[in-house]
Amino acid sequence: MPHTEALLFPLAMVALVAEAMTAALAAGRRNMDWLGVAMLGCITALGGGSVRDMLLGHYPLWWVQSPYLLLLTGGAALATIGIAQFVHRFHTIFLILDAIGLVVFTIMGANVAMSMNQPLLIVVVAGMITGCVGGVIRDVLCNDVPLLFRAELYASVSIVTGLLYIGGITYGLSPDIVIAAAFAVGLTFRLLAIRLKWEMPKFVYDSETK
Amino acid sequence: MPHTEALLFPLAMVALVAEAMTAALAAGRRNMDWLGVAMLGCITALGGGSVRDMLLGHYPLWWVQSPYLLLLTGGAALATIGIAQFVHRFHTIFLILDAIGLVVFTIMGANVAMSMNQPLLIVVVAGMITGCVGGVIRDVLCNDVPLLFRAELYASVSIVTGLLYIGGITYGLSPDIVIAAAFAVGLTFRLLAIRLKWEMPKFVYDSETK
Amino acid sequence: MPHTEALLFPLAMVALVAEAMTAALAAGRRNMDWLGVAMLGCITALGGGSVRDMLLGHYPLWWVQSPYLLLLTGGAALATIGIAQFVHRFHTIFLILDAIGLVVFTIMGANVAMSMNQPLLIVVVAGMITGCVGGVIRDVLCNDVPLLFRAELYASVSIVTGLLYIGGITYGLSPDIVIAAAFAVGLTFRLLAIRLKWEMPKFVYDSETK
Repeated sequence: MPHTEALLFPLAMVALVAEAMTAALAAGRRNMDWLGVAMLGCITALGGGSVRDMLLGHYPLWWVQSPYLLLLTGGAALATIGIAQFVHRFHTIFLILDAIGLVVFTIMGANVAMSMNQPLLIVVVAGMITGCVGGVIRDVLCNDVPLLFRAELYASVSIVTGLLYIGGITYGLSPDIVIAAAFAVGLTFRLLAIRLKWEMPKFVYDSETK
Repeated sequence: MPHTEALLFPLAMVALVAEAMTAALAAGRRNMDWLGVAMLGCITALGGGSVRDMLLGHYPLWWVQSPYLLLLTGGAALATIGIAQFVHRFHTIFLILDAIGLVVFTIMGANVAMSMNQPLLIVVVAGMITGCVGGVIRDVLCNDVPLLFRAELYASVSIVTGLLYIGGITYGLSPDIVIAAAFAVGLTFRLLAIRLKWEMPKFVYDSETK
Repeated sequence: MPHTEALLFPLAMVALVAEAMTAALAAGRRNMDWLGVAMLGCITALGGGSVRDMLLGHYPLWWVQSPYLLLLTGGAALATIGIAQFVHRFHTIFLILDAIGLVVFTIMGANVAMSMNQPLLIVVVAGMITGCVGGVIRDVLCNDVPLLFRAELYASVSIVTGLLYIGGITYGLSPDIVIAAAFAVGLTFRLLAIRLKWEMPKFVYDSETK
């Protein structure tokens, strides 16, 4: 398992930075002040894992044990203020980094639940919470209906990635290969979904009835 | 206590399904996609108990220990998409199921706190959190001011139910009788409140002063 | 440490009451009913400490161990309904009480994290969460973008107070003196920020790009 961690670690750092930066842009759209930008960056990047750990009773939380993660994510959010005017040029890079974040966080979250010997369904859910909940908190704090529930194949990518990871580990394949495969498939799925504008059918219900 | 659980169990399943279905309708009003509908169903139905357990440090959470609850509530939410057009015909049934949910969740939540030997006030609050917080999370995720704080005797019903339950158990009555009484009184109170449009006085404050 | 607690205790009670009262006014602006007012008062006053404890795994929570705090804060919120019409006359007093709350909660939160031997950065963050998160929850439940992220030097005051407190304790000064100093500096900083309308620069980002 430490080997797996080592494999995922650099990608996780990239993912944290990417999530913090997208949060900073959302904060800028709400005209938050600099400290608010830094805080929203930390909360978005680290919130998914924190909620997972509080739900599973898995203490201490990652950032409590490794407080430098607060500096990394808060710093990345602040740095985004300086480069925001160029961000639209790097729009594609951002989408790719965010997709990497989704997939990597999912695998890490599933990994945590597996190390606690949770049942398979909880492992998938733990991965999904880790990958997706940070963005939900960001949207709630920005007073939006969370994008996660409305648009794009985001949670679906997380579920597919989690299932692949768990399936591979359960069938006794080498963790390195399983991670590589889950990562590749998840990332491809997410990028195709963005590129081809795949969407899940929506449930439109209109009624005065409470 | 296992006997009590057995008594409440079938009602709790009905309550979970009812809460998931009302959440699905709320999701449909926000045009969420199918996976969003399923997720909002799970979060609404299981959120109250989860918040209670995290506040009390009562691990593992119910759905983590019994993951099939995620399938039950997510499935109920998805099924609602198919039958939404007929739902208005069953409006009254929905209100009754939701009321059953409120009362049953309250008793179950109070029960959990009692089994932890919490003080009486905490037992009432634990019941109220279990019964009411799922709806609060649903409203926050749908970007509404929670109904709980604004309208209808909902939390009040939960408090009365909880007090009856605790009072009966504390005075040494048989759990079966106490549960039946608390259930009957709570449910009647809630249905009367809906029927007769009972409301608590509101606090209307209007000022520019922050 | 018990001595420190004794020193902070009366101020903490004042702070809880102040936070519950400002929450009641926010509830009144949303026309919440009386029970909603009481609940928002409890959640706002006790929410910051609760989130800190859940993040750190520090059980039992303060109000679970001392349930009378629910009566104090809920009662203060209810009392506010009766005196709301006079509140604008006491606007300044409110701002001072709220500032006291911010500083006292920060010191108490930092204290909790120190007693758990958390690293220094986590101690500062624990203080900030305790001082600031209650107001964030209040704003989310009132369907506003949290003020904390947008305006006023609020979190900044919390950080400065926390740093002073930790610095003093770490350098071996007497806790009484450190608390008095951190309290005085934090309160002065906050009141000057209000009086002189100090603000942090804002990050304004406008773009259609997601």
